[in-house]
Amino acid sequence: MTVSHLSAHMSRFRLTVDDHLMIAHSLDDPFFGPAQRLHGATLHVHATYERPGLDTHGVVMDIGAATDLLAVVLEPLRHQNLDELPAFENKLSTTEVIIAYIAQQLAQSLPEHHGLTAIEIEAGENPRARASVRLEL
Amino acid sequence: MTVSHLSAHMSRFRLTVDDHLMIAHSLDDPFFGPAQRLHGATLHVHATYERPGLDTHGVVMDIGAATDLLAVVLEPLRHQNLDELPAFENKLSTTEVIIAYIAQQLAQSLPEHHGLTAIEIEAGENPRARASVRLEL
Amino acid sequence: MTVSHLSAHMSRFRLTVDDHLMIAHSLDDPFFGPAQRLHGATLHVHATYERPGLDTHGVVMDIGAATDLLAVVLEPLRHQNLDELPAFENKLSTTEVIIAYIAQQLAQSLPEHHGLTAIEIEAGENPRARASVRLEL
Amino acid sequence: MTVSHLSAHMSRFRLTVDDHLMIAHSLDDPFFGPAQRLHGATLHVHATYERPGLDTHGVVMDIGAATDLLAVVLEPLRHQNLDELPAFENKLSTTEVIIAYIAQQLAQSLPEHHGLTAIEIEAGENPRARASVRLEL
Amino acid sequence: MTVSHLSAHMSRFRLTVDDHLMIAHSLDDPFFGPAQRLHGATLHVHATYERPGLDTHGVVMDIGAATDLLAVVLEPLRHQNLDELPAFENKLSTTEVIIAYIAQQLAQSLPEHHGLTAIEIEAGENPRARASVRLEL
Amino acid sequence: MTVSHLSAHMSRFRLTVDDHLMIAHSLDDPFFGPAQRLHGATLHVHATYERPGLDTHGVVMDIGAATDLLAVVLEPLRHQNLDELPAFENKLSTTEVIIAYIAQQLAQSLPEHHGLTAIEIEAGENPRARASVRLEL
Repeated sequence: MTVSHLSAHMSRFRLTVDDHLMIAHSLDDPFFGPAQRLHGATLHVHATYERPGLDTHGVVMDIGAATDLLAVVLEPLRHQNLDELPAFENKLSTTEVIIAYIAQQLAQSLPEHHGLTAIEIEAGENPRARASVRLEL
Repeated sequence: MTVSHLSAHMSRFRLTVDDHLMIAHSLDDPFFGPAQRLHGATLHVHATYERPGLDTHGVVMDIGAATDLLAVVLEPLRHQNLDELPAFENKLSTTEVIIAYIAQQLAQSLPEHHGLTAIEIEAGENPRARASVRLEL
Repeated sequence: MTVSHLSAHMSRFRLTVDDHLMIAHSLDDPFFGPAQRLHGATLHVHATYERPGLDTHGVVMDIGAATDLLAVVLEPLRHQNLDELPAFENKLSTTEVIIAYIAQQLAQSLPEHHGLTAIEIEAGENPRARASVRLEL
Repeated sequence: MTVSHLSAHMSRFRLTVDDHLMIAHSLDDPFFGPAQRLHGATLHVHATYERPGLDTHGVVMDIGAATDLLAVVLEPLRHQNLDELPAFENKLSTTEVIIAYIAQQLAQSLPEHHGLTAIEIEAGENPRARASVRLEL
Repeated sequence: MTVSHLSAHMSRFRLTVDDHLMIAHSLDDPFFGPAQRLHGATLHVHATYERPGLDTHGVVMDIGAATDLLAVVLEPLRHQNLDELPAFENKLSTTEVIIAYIAQQLAQSLPEHHGLTAIEIEAGENPRARASVRLEL
Repeated sequence: MTVSHLSAHMSRFRLTVDDHLMIAHSLDDPFFGPAQRLHGATLHVHATYERPGLDTHGVVMDIGAATDLLAVVLEPLRHQNLDELPAFENKLSTTEVIIAYIAQQLAQSLPEHHGLTAIEIEAGENPRARASVRLEL
């Protein structure tokens, strides 16, 4: 079986998988108004893996593997107060900073030589706002 | 202008408006596993107002009024740690308990004689689970 | 083939299909504030058909038929200024009144003896508000 | 801790959790047109549990337990050709019949005395149509 | 507090906020078929702000500020008939033209020196179609 | 009427339209675990057309034409078992391979000289995963 002839001239394939986090935190800067108080958020997390072509199985990455890699990165953050985690204490744990952290951790955990050229992490923090970060590998 | 002839034989009209809350809390019972820790949630809140027919303006309720009534009820909960609020301290502030509280507060704030016969509050606490409560007026 | 043994004790089956309308209108009553001006809306219309059990084909109604019945009712309203349509002129064409009209027209067009006991029409007029009406048949 | 005082006068609490199925099947009746051919569907499955009040933990049911109960019922159907499963062979495996089957299996697996009075299963088979069934317990 | 070390090697951060418009208009060209008639639309508007890194508060832009900037641009269009607005009269006010206008107005209203390198405006005009425009700053 | 002055300095316009497919298939490689069995999927297909500016009607492409072009490409795949179609037999018909095929077929069917510079096809195969491909023209 072959899939490679199909991907000729394709410039970019992407696979996105979803998960979520429920965290508490406070943003200790007057800039953030009421969000200076200890509050919380459900982050709807979307991880995108990007390659210029497909692998030998005709995929960007196995969906199960893509989901598991993200879950491993999110696990230490689940049901936590970020104010008390070393990765975020004394830092402003904005949605942007959290997704940058997730992207960096995910990038470090990727299998070598899988051909990925970029990853993106998007997080919706409320029904009307979301942030994303793109990391070139 | 009249709208009443249109609503003959209609058994139920509903209007739903959306808002959201970002709160911290902990659920102090081993039943809740990792949610015993201080964590947080964005609650996607949907309030539904129900009437057997329409009012003289051909609506269940003005959308702006429906939105404002909900916002007034949610205001004291925004960006709060529920563990420290009198309404929830020493209680299990599950999503179900929070929406029951919102429903009760909303019911008490409704304008008299507006003809509403029920309200419902639904809250999504994560992308894969949501709870609702219906309160007959 | 038979499906009837599966539906024993089931109290209610529902089928929902989607369509949409793009209309202009004005709401000529100070109650509606800026919506007194001629403006417009895309209505995301959801029609639900309800039966206590399934028909001989194991469905509430054929999805294609359910979609076509709704489309026939919506057709005269598509890309119209409701202020100029006989059904709505000199009336307040609120979302509630529009869905009541759609529900009545749909009820009249239903095939006899198909066993439907109720229909519902829901319309989202903006991303944060929607209205519905239920009509018992 | 107590939650019971909050639920007084509340008529109905509901909890909904999501999962999905990817199945192949054919509908062997000319009524179904092109769906007579072997094809497939992703069913977006939503299970709703309903109670008149809350349990001693202030919930309808633990979200994890609600999700697991549904997963156990769905497991034998995942990645299957329904035409070859005893539960569906020689039957019309319409979305309605599938959800009725899921509802019945789920009802039988519910823990006794948990106070549930109804369950509902909804399944979206495509982006523009979905079916649901309600089973009184 | 510092966040800058987290954003090293990150190529692109984005923040998206949502709003909506309800407008009437007509498209006076036979190319548009029934949309030549006066009709209307709810535009689900999504504004995206883009920067190569984060600002000193660890964000792309304050969510409240991002939302307010968009609202100021949308205000003159709310509940209007675009055929009568100077910005659109005698022009084809397609969704693409409307979002280009919003993007230009938003670009002109951005605070100087905030480090934004691009904005995007997306608008869904119906449940099955949406358009977007990207403006490099 | 003119729209061209509005698009000066705009780098990229996009139009996205939606459709769906319901297919059966099997993935004959141990890599895919239970998906080696004959199963099925509803693919939520989103086609995006991209241009650096707008055409003489102020659009990327007529929405109806954009929808019809996609429908023509999807038609031979609707309600099919991909294992039996020449385009996919003896190939791994992963979501990525299917969208690459759709993108290639769509690219070949585009009207000449319409100014499109890229197309993208995205397909959601389940509620928690989706893949996309971008094809530069």
